[in-house]
Amino acid sequence: MSNTYQRIVLASRPDGEPTPQNFRLESVAVPEPAEGQVLVRNHYLSLDPYMRGRMNDGKNYAQPQPLDEVMIGGTVGEVVASRHPNYKAGDQVVGMGGWQQYQLADGNQPGVLRKVDTSRIPLSAYLGAVGMPGVTAWYGLVKLIAPKAGETVVVSAASGAVGGAVGQLAKARGCRAIGIAGGPEKCAFVVDELGFDACIDYKAHRDLGSLSAALKAAAPDGVDGYFENVGGMVLDAVMLQMNAFGRMAFCGMISGYNGEPIPMANPQLILTSRLKVEGFIVSEHMEVWPQALGELGTLVASGKLKYRETVAPRIEDAPEAFIGLLKGRNFGKQLVKLV
Amino acid sequence: MSNTYQRIVLASRPDGEPTPQNFRLESVAVPEPAEGQVLVRNHYLSLDPYMRGRMNDGKNYAQPQPLDEVMIGGTVGEVVASRHPNYKAGDQVVGMGGWQQYQLADGNQPGVLRKVDTSRIPLSAYLGAVGMPGVTAWYGLVKLIAPKAGETVVVSAASGAVGGAVGQLAKARGCRAIGIAGGPEKCAFVVDELGFDACIDYKAHRDLGSLSAALKAAAPDGVDGYFENVGGMVLDAVMLQMNAFGRMAFCGMISGYNGEPIPMANPQLILTSRLKVEGFIVSEHMEVWPQALGELGTLVASGKLKYRETVAPRIEDAPEAFIGLLKGRNFGKQLVKLV
Repeated sequence: MSNTYQRIVLASRPDGEPTPQNFRLESVAVPEPAEGQVLVRNHYLSLDPYMRGRMNDGKNYAQPQPLDEVMIGGTVGEVVASRHPNYKAGDQVVGMGGWQQYQLADGNQPGVLRKVDTSRIPLSAYLGAVGMPGVTAWYGLVKLIAPKAGETVVVSAASGAVGGAVGQLAKARGCRAIGIAGGPEKCAFVVDELGFDACIDYKAHRDLGSLSAALKAAAPDGVDGYFENVGGMVLDAVMLQMNAFGRMAFCGMISGYNGEPIPMANPQLILTSRLKVEGFIVSEHMEVWPQALGELGTLVASGKLKYRETVAPRIEDAPEAFIGLLKGRNFGKQLVKLV
Repeated sequence: MSNTYQRIVLASRPDGEPTPQNFRLESVAVPEPAEGQVLVRNHYLSLDPYMRGRMNDGKNYAQPQPLDEVMIGGTVGEVVASRHPNYKAGDQVVGMGGWQQYQLADGNQPGVLRKVDTSRIPLSAYLGAVGMPGVTAWYGLVKLIAPKAGETVVVSAASGAVGGAVGQLAKARGCRAIGIAGGPEKCAFVVDELGFDACIDYKAHRDLGSLSAALKAAAPDGVDGYFENVGGMVLDAVMLQMNAFGRMAFCGMISGYNGEPIPMANPQLILTSRLKVEGFIVSEHMEVWPQALGELGTLVASGKLKYRETVAPRIEDAPEAFIGLLKGRNFGKQLVKLV
């Protein structure tokens, strides 16, 4: 254990796209745990689109990230010192440790650290398929889209941590799963490795008509469920193919995260196709986590739920990796290695 | 009984706004009922925005109105001759008689005619507050918005047959009811006669910011439920004031019925405010009609559910009245007197 560790704080709020200058790397002393506290060495940090929203001030769907404080973020790591009876050195834990190499956690606070079993599931998977992204996929698909066998489910950002799980969970329920992703490499991965029935490269379609026609070819019976991660033209194209009584779960709209307007072209389709559209934040539905993590963990341990990770090698790479994530440069779950 | 009667058929499909030339008045012989048939003299025809959608060809949320056939429409009237044991001359009935003075109905077809009691409820009310518009209001409010006492419910086209019932049903459930309507006269009616807490004249607000600010002043605690009849800028303004976990029932989007695009400016609010948005057509939810009509009939009979009617005096006035309805020229439920 070194005497200092590194962390990244929010230095300033972005105006539009974030830049590396919005972040500041700091070196601070590794603390000693007080009575009831647990010191965790974080191994991996999860980078997620929701962080972009937290960087704004003002009304948002969650608390803004305070300036000059450690950036919020999910982490997995190992307990290195504990003065709480529930934790001991060597325990593998998942938590919201933030963009930093160490965290001091209050062992008495419920839910702040969750011990995990890495005998059959890799530690990093608890930040992806068996973590928040996996539960996000599970909630939107199972609780909001609620697909029946034989229905067609479409998901955008399909090669990502959430999107990949949505399609595989849909396949496991007897549905036709169609992904939308950016570029032939991601689309090949979605079909060949994740087992989707089809994947559309949105970058190959520069207008709504072209994208919608490609979707119609891939979903000849129409679309019954749509899991939305991106917004904009992709959303408009999918809406044109929605069947009557279709369900759309709005999980993210990454195309609008930098503040540009992203209107929905045809909201009257909600009426004429009698759609149900629902936005959600998975952390507000903690009641489903045990059931969802149970299914996701079983699928990952048995090799039936596949995923890909992009790992930035050092904490100082986190800002660039995050900026790349917002531009779709990552492939699968974006992580930062902290050890 | 005269030997001929008048009816209106669809002569051609409109390109944009309908014109009188899209309709054709015809004179035809009054038929004799065959065995099992019932001849009804229609007293009132209901004009409704949904008819605009039926005038288009191609994919719509319902069957297109065939050319050269009697325009679809709800009617109330009186049985004048019957060769079916369930009906006798003098029975007051509601049905889908269309834009015509007489209809021949198959008495064996379930639901084609419904006998109604006019001892405490006026016959025409079965086309409004105690008919399809009332049940539409009831379904969207009770089943989709599902408001709790103390919540704020907003409805557009608030002086209309549907909107007026939405607000009064919301008030009966202990909610704050806010209407949006066009012009000071309609707004005064909504507040003074229907008992809404406030009504905003959208014609007094020419941009989104102004309309949204007026709504914020009328709904200081935000909006929990929105019943949508119009779309466009009104929808955008209400969405900006929706509280987290708000519900929006899409019943109509009259501003887009002539085919012009009416984009939704900020669909990301569905995500950030975790809204539930649902489109519906009341005729697809026949299971609620008995319960809804029971409540609506009791309220109308006791004078607690108020409404206004605009009655065009003759069948030949129906096209102009319908065109005016699409432009918001009616005040309350638009009817056509057929006798």
